[in-house]
Amino acid sequence: MKSSAHLIPQPAAGSAASELMQDIGFIVELDGIKNIFRKTMVLGTDRRENDAEHSWHIAVIAMLLEKYSSFGINMTKVLKMLLIHDIVELYAGDTFAYDAAKNSDKTGRERNAMELIKTKMSPPNAAMVSALWEEFEAKETPEAVYANAMDRLQPMLSNIHAMDGGTWREFGVRREQVLKRAEPIMKINDELYSYLISQIDANVKNGNILL
Amino acid sequence: MKSSAHLIPQPAAGSAASELMQDIGFIVELDGIKNIFRKTMVLGTDRRENDAEHSWHIAVIAMLLEKYSSFGINMTKVLKMLLIHDIVELYAGDTFAYDAAKNSDKTGRERNAMELIKTKMSPPNAAMVSALWEEFEAKETPEAVYANAMDRLQPMLSNIHAMDGGTWREFGVRREQVLKRAEPIMKINDELYSYLISQIDANVKNGNILL
Repeated sequence: MKSSAHLIPQPAAGSAASELMQDIGFIVELDGIKNIFRKTMVLGTDRRENDAEHSWHIAVIAMLLEKYSSFGINMTKVLKMLLIHDIVELYAGDTFAYDAAKNSDKTGRERNAMELIKTKMSPPNAAMVSALWEEFEAKETPEAVYANAMDRLQPMLSNIHAMDGGTWREFGVRREQVLKRAEPIMKINDELYSYLISQIDANVKNGNILL
Repeated sequence: MKSSAHLIPQPAAGSAASELMQDIGFIVELDGIKNIFRKTMVLGTDRRENDAEHSWHIAVIAMLLEKYSSFGINMTKVLKMLLIHDIVELYAGDTFAYDAAKNSDKTGRERNAMELIKTKMSPPNAAMVSALWEEFEAKETPEAVYANAMDRLQPMLSNIHAMDGGTWREFGVRREQVLKRAEPIMKINDELYSYLISQIDANVKNGNILL
């Protein structure tokens, strides 16, 4: 290889040129997120939504619910966090919230995936993305609390509006499990949380959620 | 209805209660964006991508290319703009960039759709979303220029990495049309634009793009 290297323009190691091309390469690879399917169904269809659709939806929800938040948030950080929160699934796959077995080793699988992802981006972007992901996972900062609430809210709204009880009925989910998933939303807005609780109660009554 | 109205808690008109529930209703309706399909294929599959996937992808691209931008931008505004730039297609449908006939009445159809969308959100969110959309469409502010460049870049990267020339070959697109679509990217970063030009040239040579 060395003998012909002079024929091809070689960007200096660590130069802006090679960093941009590295980031473009990862941007193309991210197309794969469109093939990582979740359990949630797209309303009115017989197909499940994928991580790209989910991430778009919760980022828009974050925008539209900002004014109802009980605490202040940096929306740039929230949006960036939501946009990348599932990219580890490119290598770790999706883990259904109510799948106890797969959740037991989720953190390790996803942390390994993030280490791999960091090698695929320019160092500044790798640092930004991994810091946002760690912050989201830790659920401690206002932005992480808000972002995690959006992530929990969207599949609940989908199940509430599904004709057949959505993933609640399909996977025999119990009321206590749903209430636990809904907890982060309590911190965001009382009216929103009360609405969810009334809908969860209604879905227990009609058998979509198990007692 | 009036006689039984006292039995149901009625939020006062314009109160936070009814605004939140109106926004939640629109958030659920936005699921339909996952069913608006573009021409671009998801790489390595035989299906086209939808507006939700596309919007997610370009928002992530905006994040990852910010440091290469030749001019300063407000990233919050860019991300919000990209997340909602296609929601008019919920009612106006997707218009392929290289379809001259459908592009002739695109603006009118999309403007009508935005008027309808504004009635479906709380007034503050309707004002925010329509202002962002108008700014994106006008392509004048730094944020709109950057956001439009991301919107043009993503399908080009997809075609460059498709096995078969993607939508360029499928729809018999000509070099001058592709160059016109790529123009906004010239303003963002010279190296990125040069890369695209070299890839466009290569795709003219191998027949994916018509001369």
